[in-house]
Amino acid sequence: MSQLKIAVICIGDELLKGFTVNTNLTDIGSELLQLGLIINNASVIPDTTEMIQNSTTNMVDSGMDVIILTGGLGPTVDDLTKETIAELFKLKLIMSEKVVATLKLYWNNRNRSMPEAVLDQALIPEGAEILPNDVGTAPGLLIHASDHHPRLPAIILLPGPPSEMNPMFKNYVIPYLSTLKGYDKLFTNTIYTTGLPESIIEEKTLPLIKNSIFSIAYCASPEAVKVYISSSDRDQLNSKTDELRERLGEFALHQGITDSIQAVVNYCKQHDLTLSVAESCTGGLIAAAITDIPGASQIFKGGVVSYSNEWKNQILHVSEETINKFGAVSYECAEEMVTNLCNYYKTDLGISITGIAGPAGGTPEKPVGLIYIGAKLNDKIVIKQFNLSGDRNRVRQRTVYAAANLLKTLFL
Amino acid sequence: MSQLKIAVICIGDELLKGFTVNTNLTDIGSELLQLGLIINNASVIPDTTEMIQNSTTNMVDSGMDVIILTGGLGPTVDDLTKETIAELFKLKLIMSEKVVATLKLYWNNRNRSMPEAVLDQALIPEGAEILPNDVGTAPGLLIHASDHHPRLPAIILLPGPPSEMNPMFKNYVIPYLSTLKGYDKLFTNTIYTTGLPESIIEEKTLPLIKNSIFSIAYCASPEAVKVYISSSDRDQLNSKTDELRERLGEFALHQGITDSIQAVVNYCKQHDLTLSVAESCTGGLIAAAITDIPGASQIFKGGVVSYSNEWKNQILHVSEETINKFGAVSYECAEEMVTNLCNYYKTDLGISITGIAGPAGGTPEKPVGLIYIGAKLNDKIVIKQFNLSGDRNRVRQRTVYAAANLLKTLFL
Repeated sequence: MSQLKIAVICIGDELLKGFTVNTNLTDIGSELLQLGLIINNASVIPDTTEMIQNSTTNMVDSGMDVIILTGGLGPTVDDLTKETIAELFKLKLIMSEKVVATLKLYWNNRNRSMPEAVLDQALIPEGAEILPNDVGTAPGLLIHASDHHPRLPAIILLPGPPSEMNPMFKNYVIPYLSTLKGYDKLFTNTIYTTGLPESIIEEKTLPLIKNSIFSIAYCASPEAVKVYISSSDRDQLNSKTDELRERLGEFALHQGITDSIQAVVNYCKQHDLTLSVAESCTGGLIAAAITDIPGASQIFKGGVVSYSNEWKNQILHVSEETINKFGAVSYECAEEMVTNLCNYYKTDLGISITGIAGPAGGTPEKPVGLIYIGAKLNDKIVIKQFNLSGDRNRVRQRTVYAAANLLKTLFL
Repeated sequence: MSQLKIAVICIGDELLKGFTVNTNLTDIGSELLQLGLIINNASVIPDTTEMIQNSTTNMVDSGMDVIILTGGLGPTVDDLTKETIAELFKLKLIMSEKVVATLKLYWNNRNRSMPEAVLDQALIPEGAEILPNDVGTAPGLLIHASDHHPRLPAIILLPGPPSEMNPMFKNYVIPYLSTLKGYDKLFTNTIYTTGLPESIIEEKTLPLIKNSIFSIAYCASPEAVKVYISSSDRDQLNSKTDELRERLGEFALHQGITDSIQAVVNYCKQHDLTLSVAESCTGGLIAAAITDIPGASQIFKGGVVSYSNEWKNQILHVSEETINKFGAVSYECAEEMVTNLCNYYKTDLGISITGIAGPAGGTPEKPVGLIYIGAKLNDKIVIKQFNLSGDRNRVRQRTVYAAANLLKTLFL
């Protein structure tokens, strides 16, 4: 047996000019992974007949079983995908009465007369199966191998807007792919780790994988170092994943948790504890990350973005003496911030952050990237100095997760 | 003359398995656009020697002038790009003492001993130019045509993490590409607009473009509706852009300003005014967006994330009566929040937000997406109800920019 070879071709000038981030490829990839399938090759190309033909031909020639094209199915002049594919495989375009009826209904429901150009959307390559569009007007199309084209891979045409592509893929393409039998699957588990650099995570895990049926990959981001383990045997994969988790110990996040902010919120929910934050240079990012989690209101009381010394004093009651003597970016200020935060506003856990994110504001004594983080869990308190590198955005992002990691150390 | 033909090959299983959204392609595309250059073809491929070789060979064969590869430059076993490209073009790998010194310094500065595997990053294909990594350890590489390879396109290898790729591209690749002469350019200007839907923006601008040397495109996102105008003639493009700006009037943001948060911060700086925010369902996002702008500390005093009724009362002094009678998500609560915020904490401008971002928390009377926003500029105050659609993330994002837009209406 071999793997089902899947190619994705994303069509659209906007993807190459930097106007639009290509989320379609990511969404298709993560849906396929649930089925044990992996995209073998992907292209991102402009809206031209030549590039659509070349890219599709290349994918056919390299032995793909399924070729998925997204974009270029709309009613405007730069929508060329269907016509180009029909021409390439010498398929006649036939007016589909079923699609005509759907289009008429769509426009009637909106009390608008249907523009003539829209009828182009009802032209279907002969033999193609229609994938309903439950959100917009352009139907998707599935072109199978036939007597005329016995060696044609399955060609799937999907609309470009993610709000139309995503439900069509989930509701009509995934069920079709699930019917294809006789292929190897490759399943992947992910372990999210925090608190160690990628190279150390690799040192700890690679020896357990070497010369085995498993493959492993690593990916570092400010939130977590991710470990991906893959195998065609789902049961063995799960037990190997457990073994790696055990090896990684406290540095592996629990299943279902993908970063240390989630780990903190989860801990609070499990132990019925309340949380608050006081942040300076991260300017609301840590509160935003916490409240990004649905249901955070159960445990999160609130946050103070004390961006000025007045606010540190007026709301967090940091003494003027501390600020004058040690500065706002100091061990002492971080300590007073977190202590007062939890005491005045009555929460079990607290985080305080004060630092210099840059690009301006640094001095030889207190350079850009100097951050003090305070963490408090009832009577336990820890204050730690960090020297982070990177630009303003990166320093701020790394500080968010460094803070959650520091708070997590108090859970042990 | 012809256009400079540029290919981008993004390497990484994580991009095909749906773990990571490919922002590198978008970022490279938008940087190139500033130079009048457009990506001709892009591939997204797994971390395998075979796919890196095939994809690069395809791009060489299709006549590309520049091939940019991102990803696979790290120290782990699945980082294969450099070795594969060296083998493909028969270039020896040579240990670079310069890179060794940089790596040693990087690990010394962090008070950690350097893992042995890291030294692989100092192996450089002969003749390659080193592109410094100002953020991480893996250097970028620029391989030129040489006596050995007179017809080699320029091959540029960049690290995969966006925080490393982006500054390297801006600081070292863009200057190199700027030196290439004798190619056609297609320039694009962008006008950022707020306060009107995409269809109205199109109605206002399209008649000024029809039957001209210009092409136009539109893209809507929560921050702004963007208008892209392109032409090969930079001077004519600039004067047409001015004409469109004039037609759009107050809805076009000033040059250099790309969303209404920036417009608010800019206005405060110009008029020497101070700003604060009190937010509930956006949970810190608006403060984070403000403090994302370097130098925001000049005008931004701070923010309160009043995620609980206690905090609304204790810090913002919203009366218990208001919360009991009208609820925390109400016109009255938004009004008290913004009034007290500016009065107690002494800022000229203030924003308040209270609403239901979902997915839970909605009722028939107060459904998910119901948001009240308050905006205050000295004596002027406005409170407005919004009913926003979309998931939690989209409601929160749209609220941030709706709030800044509402505050902006007080500037007129």
